[in-house]
Amino acid sequence: MKAVVYSGSSAKITIQDRPKPLILEPTDAIIKLLHTTICGTDLHILQGHVPTCTPGRILGHEGVGVIESLGPAVTTTFTIGQTVLISCITSCGTCHFCRRKMPSQCSSGGWILGNTIDGTQAEYVRIPHASFSLHALPQSIDPKVAVTLSDTIPTAYECGILNGHITPGSTVAIIGTGPIGLMILQMARNLFGPAITVVVGRGQPRLDTAKAMGADHTLSVLEGGEEAVISSALGLTIGNRGFDVVIEAVGTKESFGIAQGLVGAGGTIASLGVFGESCELHLEKLWNRNICLRTRLVDAVSTPDLLQIVESGGISPGFLVSHGFSFDQIHDAYEAFELSSKHGALKVVVTMPEPHSNGVS
Amino acid sequence: MKAVVYSGSSAKITIQDRPKPLILEPTDAIIKLLHTTICGTDLHILQGHVPTCTPGRILGHEGVGVIESLGPAVTTTFTIGQTVLISCITSCGTCHFCRRKMPSQCSSGGWILGNTIDGTQAEYVRIPHASFSLHALPQSIDPKVAVTLSDTIPTAYECGILNGHITPGSTVAIIGTGPIGLMILQMARNLFGPAITVVVGRGQPRLDTAKAMGADHTLSVLEGGEEAVISSALGLTIGNRGFDVVIEAVGTKESFGIAQGLVGAGGTIASLGVFGESCELHLEKLWNRNICLRTRLVDAVSTPDLLQIVESGGISPGFLVSHGFSFDQIHDAYEAFELSSKHGALKVVVTMPEPHSNGVS
Amino acid sequence: MKAVVYSGSSAKITIQDRPKPLILEPTDAIIKLLHTTICGTDLHILQGHVPTCTPGRILGHEGVGVIESLGPAVTTTFTIGQTVLISCITSCGTCHFCRRKMPSQCSSGGWILGNTIDGTQAEYVRIPHASFSLHALPQSIDPKVAVTLSDTIPTAYECGILNGHITPGSTVAIIGTGPIGLMILQMARNLFGPAITVVVGRGQPRLDTAKAMGADHTLSVLEGGEEAVISSALGLTIGNRGFDVVIEAVGTKESFGIAQGLVGAGGTIASLGVFGESCELHLEKLWNRNICLRTRLVDAVSTPDLLQIVESGGISPGFLVSHGFSFDQIHDAYEAFELSSKHGALKVVVTMPEPHSNGVS
Amino acid sequence: MKAVVYSGSSAKITIQDRPKPLILEPTDAIIKLLHTTICGTDLHILQGHVPTCTPGRILGHEGVGVIESLGPAVTTTFTIGQTVLISCITSCGTCHFCRRKMPSQCSSGGWILGNTIDGTQAEYVRIPHASFSLHALPQSIDPKVAVTLSDTIPTAYECGILNGHITPGSTVAIIGTGPIGLMILQMARNLFGPAITVVVGRGQPRLDTAKAMGADHTLSVLEGGEEAVISSALGLTIGNRGFDVVIEAVGTKESFGIAQGLVGAGGTIASLGVFGESCELHLEKLWNRNICLRTRLVDAVSTPDLLQIVESGGISPGFLVSHGFSFDQIHDAYEAFELSSKHGALKVVVTMPEPHSNGVS
Repeated sequence: MKAVVYSGSSAKITIQDRPKPLILEPTDAIIKLLHTTICGTDLHILQGHVPTCTPGRILGHEGVGVIESLGPAVTTTFTIGQTVLISCITSCGTCHFCRRKMPSQCSSGGWILGNTIDGTQAEYVRIPHASFSLHALPQSIDPKVAVTLSDTIPTAYECGILNGHITPGSTVAIIGTGPIGLMILQMARNLFGPAITVVVGRGQPRLDTAKAMGADHTLSVLEGGEEAVISSALGLTIGNRGFDVVIEAVGTKESFGIAQGLVGAGGTIASLGVFGESCELHLEKLWNRNICLRTRLVDAVSTPDLLQIVESGGISPGFLVSHGFSFDQIHDAYEAFELSSKHGALKVVVTMPEPHSNGVS
Repeated sequence: MKAVVYSGSSAKITIQDRPKPLILEPTDAIIKLLHTTICGTDLHILQGHVPTCTPGRILGHEGVGVIESLGPAVTTTFTIGQTVLISCITSCGTCHFCRRKMPSQCSSGGWILGNTIDGTQAEYVRIPHASFSLHALPQSIDPKVAVTLSDTIPTAYECGILNGHITPGSTVAIIGTGPIGLMILQMARNLFGPAITVVVGRGQPRLDTAKAMGADHTLSVLEGGEEAVISSALGLTIGNRGFDVVIEAVGTKESFGIAQGLVGAGGTIASLGVFGESCELHLEKLWNRNICLRTRLVDAVSTPDLLQIVESGGISPGFLVSHGFSFDQIHDAYEAFELSSKHGALKVVVTMPEPHSNGVS
Repeated sequence: MKAVVYSGSSAKITIQDRPKPLILEPTDAIIKLLHTTICGTDLHILQGHVPTCTPGRILGHEGVGVIESLGPAVTTTFTIGQTVLISCITSCGTCHFCRRKMPSQCSSGGWILGNTIDGTQAEYVRIPHASFSLHALPQSIDPKVAVTLSDTIPTAYECGILNGHITPGSTVAIIGTGPIGLMILQMARNLFGPAITVVVGRGQPRLDTAKAMGADHTLSVLEGGEEAVISSALGLTIGNRGFDVVIEAVGTKESFGIAQGLVGAGGTIASLGVFGESCELHLEKLWNRNICLRTRLVDAVSTPDLLQIVESGGISPGFLVSHGFSFDQIHDAYEAFELSSKHGALKVVVTMPEPHSNGVS
Repeated sequence: MKAVVYSGSSAKITIQDRPKPLILEPTDAIIKLLHTTICGTDLHILQGHVPTCTPGRILGHEGVGVIESLGPAVTTTFTIGQTVLISCITSCGTCHFCRRKMPSQCSSGGWILGNTIDGTQAEYVRIPHASFSLHALPQSIDPKVAVTLSDTIPTAYECGILNGHITPGSTVAIIGTGPIGLMILQMARNLFGPAITVVVGRGQPRLDTAKAMGADHTLSVLEGGEEAVISSALGLTIGNRGFDVVIEAVGTKESFGIAQGLVGAGGTIASLGVFGESCELHLEKLWNRNICLRTRLVDAVSTPDLLQIVESGGISPGFLVSHGFSFDQIHDAYEAFELSSKHGALKVVVTMPEPHSNGVS
């Protein structure tokens, strides 16, 4: 079968022929991919920043597919031929962390797909602990859009929305206008009743999108810099008292600094960034302001709830799918995603060859 | 001044001339009413069902007015001439229960207005513990609509919405289509992201209103009775498993029975009814279903939040004001409210005479 | 092998020879029992009150044993020969309810052992969904005492302690002095910091035990009846305001009535009783007192935590094991447990024959 | 009257004669001090590190005294001659923050005593917002010990214990062995059921005290430094997975670094330090570990609960009072507290002259 492989030698993917994966454990499933997508983390891998991912690895941790075969322990949960959503997080279900609903830290799972085991940017993928790591995809959800439920949507929800502890009437600042920042905006507005939503970003096109999606105010750090943005944003809160909820969805020292400037007394910072270095925490200003800061790697434990929320129309993730490519256009897909500003890309969905090409793999 | 008085002798109000109230404690305020309204509890009083309310009492616990005078302990919180919302719950702020945010149980407050002390259906009212029992009314909120913030809206929010513990994706059943039931529906849809909202009522006009307000399904107990409604409603949940949240806003044995039939395993019943008798609790069916049942008299501790939610457009209570009357039409107002089905009444707002009539009082 | 069987024809067990169970599913385990025990529910079955349990069923849902064989899906979690605790609740881990940490409602599990499938009062038992339904038993915990961790201790903790929402300084009333009531008392005192613990019971010996275990006050319903107990207990709270937490661990109309009389405004009733009929709920007194009532069938999701708490000495369940019997004395064990007042029995532990008797089975 | 005054010119207090304070607002009370004490913050002021405190200020924000006079708005809450505890936090009760139970941020209160208004290290003190800022002292609590309830105990409880979210079975690390660190240790053990408590400190005498108070393990940063302590402490947790709760009660870059090293995935850091500079936050290690970090200035909203917990014996703060001085020994008291290691001082209680000296003041 064809697969997207991290070669290690340059910041580029290679396409290779690989053997179709086999069931290794009774809890495994083999999935024939219908659609997959590319994540910012895949780009980090190509840049050599993810040491756990070694050359030769098939990339990808997102996807929707059809069950090709099942280990004997999974047959009561799923059936051959069923369309399923692949979770970016593999969960054994029984370890200390899985029992505490933190499969991100699972002792034999976590983020392993496309990292320490072969991933979803291929015609087939082996999914360990399939009972916990796959979800039946309801017919009413477009499989192309559903790839955003592998990682983007649960990340927005768990690391942003839930970690932010929004309640009705909360004042909410969202830093970042990527797919996750925009999804958080939609969730905050649709699933909670914030008094005000302020979105901080850089490029005007994305800020315009945020505005069109209902953000009460948008602010660009390109106009006046960090301090000016903080000052303007605080001015939108009563008595400049700051925000109840600040969701930081960028992951730079600058954005983390802005988050600290925006949080009000008694407020919460939800930090979603993937940080490669330490940051300055202004405890000299925050020690007596009763704040809460939360980090989280997505656990994807909310995926069943999120599937139901999408089905009932609570959120509409269709806007995230900005581009579509066929698998043989994978290089174009990577380029569109890497140069997202140029291409206006949010998520690029890559669609696999039709079933009749099966025999070639 | 003119006042609506409970005479005790019939189920009717009488209008009497009474002396204007005076500041008795340094924490008091005297409010000149702009608008007041009638509550179902006022009707209970007239029917003799509220023994704490003795004949001669000025009725009413809802209203918006202007500060006429202030005790010396209140001058830092409010100013003469300010427009304020009167809370239906009087709170001392310092007793055991007020410190636990339960002023409904306040040792020198709670529901006393129009019950154990004179109330708001008069030209003036004395408000004890004014710092806690009044709220500055923002200019952007129509004072006529704001009377619904004295009792109806905090009751819907605290006793229904908060006690129901709705979370995104919850399945929600609301029993009752009065002002509170409909407000709960609006709040559930606007401030949370329920997967499904089902409203159970009696009369078709109100069920149609619920439908128009966005209820996913409406069911009438008049069609087939209690068992049929339960069966139909359960059929709207996956695998007939019942609802995550059941909000019972009627207060009869029948409605409480329906609530128990609708709640799913792990679900919550928020009971808002004002019960005059005990009810049957089907522990033989519920003991092993992990349910939670909550009761609450409104504490009105959420009023500052609710004012902000109304200001930001999170909820739109205007629809509650179905009828307007002048104070000299108070008998008509009571009739419209008593025969609410006939008149299609939700809340009837009673507006006081213009300022120039001040001298007469 | 020898097994305790519900024959259906009288309120007595029969001992039968049965074939040793076999692995049926890849997620199964076969356990050779070391110790088992008898639960009040087993007595209910014998009295014909549990219709799901049909004649011919091997009884028992508690036990500690050694892994005899494992289905292929369980080999990564457990090893042959390991000593394990059997949970009274079987959990698939993946259904709607198991994902919400409510395996009591598991679609293919829940309380099935000794109910709808053969149970633990036998030399061997088949445990479905073994990864979730067994727990490694730490060496430091006496296996005889550990049988109380199958059901009694998680029931006390989840249905009593957690459902009661005790916080430091809470006033706590516990109704019932059986094994669960006494365990709740120990947990409340050791794991939380209640301001006061009051235990309501019937027989003086058990109330003396409660007193010796640290209850601040004990009250007997045999002295003056329900109303006198309520009045005395309320008198132990400041201003007769009632208890923050009432844990009802009996399950009769009388005890449920006492619970309602004891709960203070803002308080919680945790109801643990196994009710066979409906009860009167005094909503005419409770509707405006902001109370919360919770029911729960044990989910046993806290078992890993409880094992750690026992290991660290947080609780000491040894006192629960009042009697020990060998398996060939099983009739005596049942009698001691049935006539617990006469025998002073809490939990009776039944120990299986030594390994060398293996071949006979 | 005699008062301890911050002169601004050296790191020393001066004793001055000052006029007895008067009631300025109807919500004020004048308290005749019985006992006061010295806080680390007083030392910060003397060192010139608290710019809000200007020269000429009477120091002190802790104390127990007798009500000398009351503004007219306070007479229903308190009576002349009553013994009261003075809260270190002044609360108006009605502002945005007080309503959210955060009087530390009160718009006309917060920490003002001995900071922006005259404090408690004097024969008399004026207490604004007295209804919220004083607490009746139960007779059963020794007034000398009760001074620890002004600040130390609520700080330990709110900023340490509550912010740390300890649950039964939690693994808890406490960094710091001052009065607050030791009080946190006692509270963790008495009011919760931690699986393990590890105390990290410097000097052996205090670590021995911690051990004697029941710490399971004590570790000194003086032996091997920060990295060695982290490594040893992690080794005390299963699989080196780190602590569920880390309470940092020192407030240096080093101690904050240790806290980050100790916290396990899904764990919480409660930060109590009074920081004068920013700290490094290792987001490159923590971003994907689901941690929570909380700061808080004491709100003293738990004081009524804590009074009840002390009364019921839940905690025993007597050990905190290591030294007693009369008011004319105030210089010795400051020295003992400043050189706490040398003197083995925890809290030094300063007792005011007897009533007969009243006339002199």
